[in-house]
Amino acid sequence: MVGAGQLARMTHQAAIGLGQSLRILAADRNESAALVGADVVVGDHRSYDDLRRFAKSCDVLTWDHEHVSGEHIRRLVGEGRTALPGADALQFAQDKQRMRSRLAGLGVAVPEWATVSTVDEVASFADNHDWPVVLKVIAGGYDGRGVWVVEDVTAAEAIVARGIPLIAEEHVPITRELAAVVARSPFGQLAVWPVVETVQRDGICVEVLAPAPGLDEAIAVTAQQIGIRLATDLDVVGVLAVELFATADGLLVNELAMRPHNSAHWTIEGSRTSQFEQHLRAVLDYPLGDTRMTAPAVAMANVLGGGPDLDERLHHLMARWPSAKVHLYGKQFRPGRKIGHVTALGEDIAETRPVASAAAAYLAGGESLP
Amino acid sequence: MVGAGQLARMTHQAAIGLGQSLRILAADRNESAALVGADVVVGDHRSYDDLRRFAKSCDVLTWDHEHVSGEHIRRLVGEGRTALPGADALQFAQDKQRMRSRLAGLGVAVPEWATVSTVDEVASFADNHDWPVVLKVIAGGYDGRGVWVVEDVTAAEAIVARGIPLIAEEHVPITRELAAVVARSPFGQLAVWPVVETVQRDGICVEVLAPAPGLDEAIAVTAQQIGIRLATDLDVVGVLAVELFATADGLLVNELAMRPHNSAHWTIEGSRTSQFEQHLRAVLDYPLGDTRMTAPAVAMANVLGGGPDLDERLHHLMARWPSAKVHLYGKQFRPGRKIGHVTALGEDIAETRPVASAAAAYLAGGESLP
Repeated sequence: MVGAGQLARMTHQAAIGLGQSLRILAADRNESAALVGADVVVGDHRSYDDLRRFAKSCDVLTWDHEHVSGEHIRRLVGEGRTALPGADALQFAQDKQRMRSRLAGLGVAVPEWATVSTVDEVASFADNHDWPVVLKVIAGGYDGRGVWVVEDVTAAEAIVARGIPLIAEEHVPITRELAAVVARSPFGQLAVWPVVETVQRDGICVEVLAPAPGLDEAIAVTAQQIGIRLATDLDVVGVLAVELFATADGLLVNELAMRPHNSAHWTIEGSRTSQFEQHLRAVLDYPLGDTRMTAPAVAMANVLGGGPDLDERLHHLMARWPSAKVHLYGKQFRPGRKIGHVTALGEDIAETRPVASAAAAYLAGGESLP
Repeated sequence: MVGAGQLARMTHQAAIGLGQSLRILAADRNESAALVGADVVVGDHRSYDDLRRFAKSCDVLTWDHEHVSGEHIRRLVGEGRTALPGADALQFAQDKQRMRSRLAGLGVAVPEWATVSTVDEVASFADNHDWPVVLKVIAGGYDGRGVWVVEDVTAAEAIVARGIPLIAEEHVPITRELAAVVARSPFGQLAVWPVVETVQRDGICVEVLAPAPGLDEAIAVTAQQIGIRLATDLDVVGVLAVELFATADGLLVNELAMRPHNSAHWTIEGSRTSQFEQHLRAVLDYPLGDTRMTAPAVAMANVLGGGPDLDERLHHLMARWPSAKVHLYGKQFRPGRKIGHVTALGEDIAETRPVASAAAAYLAGGESLP
């Protein structure tokens, strides 16, 4: 796995169960997955030579993030390596402009959008779709970075002046955000988890509720069908997370990720097959596992922050909520940084959500233990 | 963790979730846990110098097996190290004679037994308890090794002639074997999993059924109370597995293990807190986790054997039983060797046992895929 963040860390846990040992390409030895992996290669994922050295003797290459260039991946495959998901699929998770164009071509609904390179183009887009306008970097954004909601020409000017390739998007009146997460094998086998609700704050996912509370069954099926359709039509192998806007008029695709994704961390305890095991099964071409839930309701909350008293807080958390499942990523804390998550299982969302949410907030440095 | 078998391997998986990285003392780099661990020290657990070098800067030392000498452990503690469970507790998992004596002193029922060093003593024991007699090595036996059922003086002679310290035990007419697995923290907090049935073949555990099917509630509570009593009275910290004989007259304690144990591998998916996470929480002095089951019935079967077609068999297994959870230990296979296990969750034992059992038998080299 190229990249040594928490996704690689949790993938290593799943690999151990399958009798595998994950090789990890890390920028340095202190990255989340590099702290726990047995086979860590230090190198730069932007360097072809480093990738090539890393890939040697790997059965298959896969990704912890979207930042490996398609050109590098194609060269590696040209030299006989197997890389999954492949460059042709991955481009749609790397480049929002290509993704939006391709999805429109497939007839899958996306927010209204346009490529913009000048303030006039943003203003012209706003004439048709009204202010505010959402500006997004075409490549490289994540967790709210690279996304700006601009209210007027002046605000747009400040972003456009940076000179980075952007798209403008309509500011969709969403009722909530959902995610449909699926996995697909090279053979084309598909497995789908229940559709979840993702709760964002300042553009960062803070909670995931599985299944999405009160979601109309027909909308859930539509969301899953979008996931299946995109995985198949884009020839994705591995986990595909489709982030969706729910609106009064239906579903719009917001983002794609072709790797294990924050919206499915709940599957570690909450599904018979975790997304990490499933991703490995898919890219290694094993049959996919059962995606049934292990409890009627599961809630996951991210730990955003933390401090030097993290370990003391962990003690209190475990005493207060003996059934909460804590996952810490071995990261140095700084304000707002995602350093772990907490999962709670139960009979309904009224039971699970307060536990996951309060436990994560407390670990992150919250004032009191409710 | 001293020792790098599958218990350390699975403990590392749990450690990753808790934000820890397990340091492992391995005899060589190809041991099960050494293949996946980030912090592997190669050394000999019988060498004080190796243990001392390994222990340096560890928060706490714990054990993958019972083979570290109490003398070494006491010296390490004398030099300021923390070792859990400690030597005073561990001696009762290391020495059957001491364990039987101590348990008898506590009023906990054990099979009738005597220390024997001559054939005459075995014959005299048989005069009181009848043939066959069970001979057991006092220290170092496991998985059926070091246990002999002898039918007469001639058979006893062959074992006694080896000159190893032995105890003789009555051949108990058991109805089945059970295990009560508990965990205890340094503070004395206790957590108990449901009592399970362990199914043995040729002295080796082949299946574990959780909870023990049809077990009378009063007997289950008695078994749990024995576990709690022994953990407390023997001052065990970490997981304690109490192997029990169920007889028409009640329960007898057969063996003790003070570490994660095969009889609780089912807890990885089958309980809110796995025995590996619980062992870490206990020895690191965190509050213990919820031991509720995640499904009404869980079955685990060991994979004993395997062959060069293991990977092909894994493909077929995953296609046939998408919900079976496979754990492979990265071990080289040889006939009868425990190389992994399979866990199945379901509504009742009629659903789970055939899946776990057939899947494990197939992986081990069974002729057909049922």
